[in-house]
Amino acid sequence: MKIGFLGAGSVGQTLATKLAANGHDVILGIRTVSPAELAKPRQNAQPLDHWSKTTTARIVTFAEAADHGEIIFNVTPGEHSLAAIAAAGAAPLSGKILIDVANPLDFLRGMPPSLYPALSNTTSVGEQIQAALPGTHVVKAFNTVGAPIMVNPGAISGPHDLFLSGNDAGAKEEVTAFARREFGWSTIHDLGDITGARAQEALLLFWIRIWASSGNPAFNLHIAR
Amino acid sequence: MKIGFLGAGSVGQTLATKLAANGHDVILGIRTVSPAELAKPRQNAQPLDHWSKTTTARIVTFAEAADHGEIIFNVTPGEHSLAAIAAAGAAPLSGKILIDVANPLDFLRGMPPSLYPALSNTTSVGEQIQAALPGTHVVKAFNTVGAPIMVNPGAISGPHDLFLSGNDAGAKEEVTAFARREFGWSTIHDLGDITGARAQEALLLFWIRIWASSGNPAFNLHIAR
Repeated sequence: MKIGFLGAGSVGQTLATKLAANGHDVILGIRTVSPAELAKPRQNAQPLDHWSKTTTARIVTFAEAADHGEIIFNVTPGEHSLAAIAAAGAAPLSGKILIDVANPLDFLRGMPPSLYPALSNTTSVGEQIQAALPGTHVVKAFNTVGAPIMVNPGAISGPHDLFLSGNDAGAKEEVTAFARREFGWSTIHDLGDITGARAQEALLLFWIRIWASSGNPAFNLHIAR
Repeated sequence: MKIGFLGAGSVGQTLATKLAANGHDVILGIRTVSPAELAKPRQNAQPLDHWSKTTTARIVTFAEAADHGEIIFNVTPGEHSLAAIAAAGAAPLSGKILIDVANPLDFLRGMPPSLYPALSNTTSVGEQIQAALPGTHVVKAFNTVGAPIMVNPGAISGPHDLFLSGNDAGAKEEVTAFARREFGWSTIHDLGDITGARAQEALLLFWIRIWASSGNPAFNLHIAR
């Protein structure tokens, strides 16, 4: 299928590499496409001109990626997501599923990061994207695991879980099926409507603390009963 | 041992009942002790005059409970914790371990609850208690599970985890040993210094969402690797 990404950082590259390898027609959108932009060093990720040589996924603008995808991933940093959505435009995203993977983490104050107050606690990136795109089915998912685990949950032994939320039951069923089929996820919890994104995004404060105190990001949560 | 509680709600009653049954000399502190106060209905908990008939634990004032305990539990609501600490006084808490179980959950805006901004994100109840009591070893613990699970982790099948944070390594070792010995906890993660309380308290937004979406509070998290 045709899959579009908004963003091309480490999460986008990891998801796109896997989905392209699975045979999908994948393109990633960034703000401006230029040789300098493609050669730019990226945090925890390859420069895009290097990465492009390793995959069939291609780099285009936000608007082209939104237009291309039958399903869209938002993998921009949470504080830039609404601008990326605006650059993509509501029309090419209308009627589609947008899987929102963003987290509103503020690293500018040093460690540990906090959540941007305007994007958390009584709101969330997921909710604000849904409000900006009333014709799009936003499903918050994948944001609570590191990128290598998103595409390879089998790297963790024993049961561990994926969480999603969104207003449209059919869209959540499609994302659930997608996560199982493309990556091999098994246990997936539906947290209800898109206000569940508050909980999924707040979980990052905990996730980062587990990472920092253990020194190892290769973990995931399991809800034990 | 002598154990004092600040607070006497459902969490305090559950912990105190178990610790008294284990043979400890347990007393719970509340703001004012009067027949009317003891007969007052309590959310998710028994009126104290009823509950007192079921346990050897006794009800006193905050200051008396702080003075009594060799180890102290703070089980007041997060938004009232600093006032309870002030009522108890720093002197009777000095040199002791205070296990902080509080969460700064604001239910006044309706469901889902949010965290009080002045007590979360870049700070926490745990940190503010530690700042108010520099001579006390504050250990944040037990706040990420429901009260019935705190005292009976065996009610959950399979591995599941307790989290603690605090500035004093020796105090964390004592609380770890206490959790194993009194309640039967096995896997306990040290999240580092007391700033870990931000992560532990933020987790409640996620905890409540899992509860709300599943309809069942009898769960806990496991860090799978």
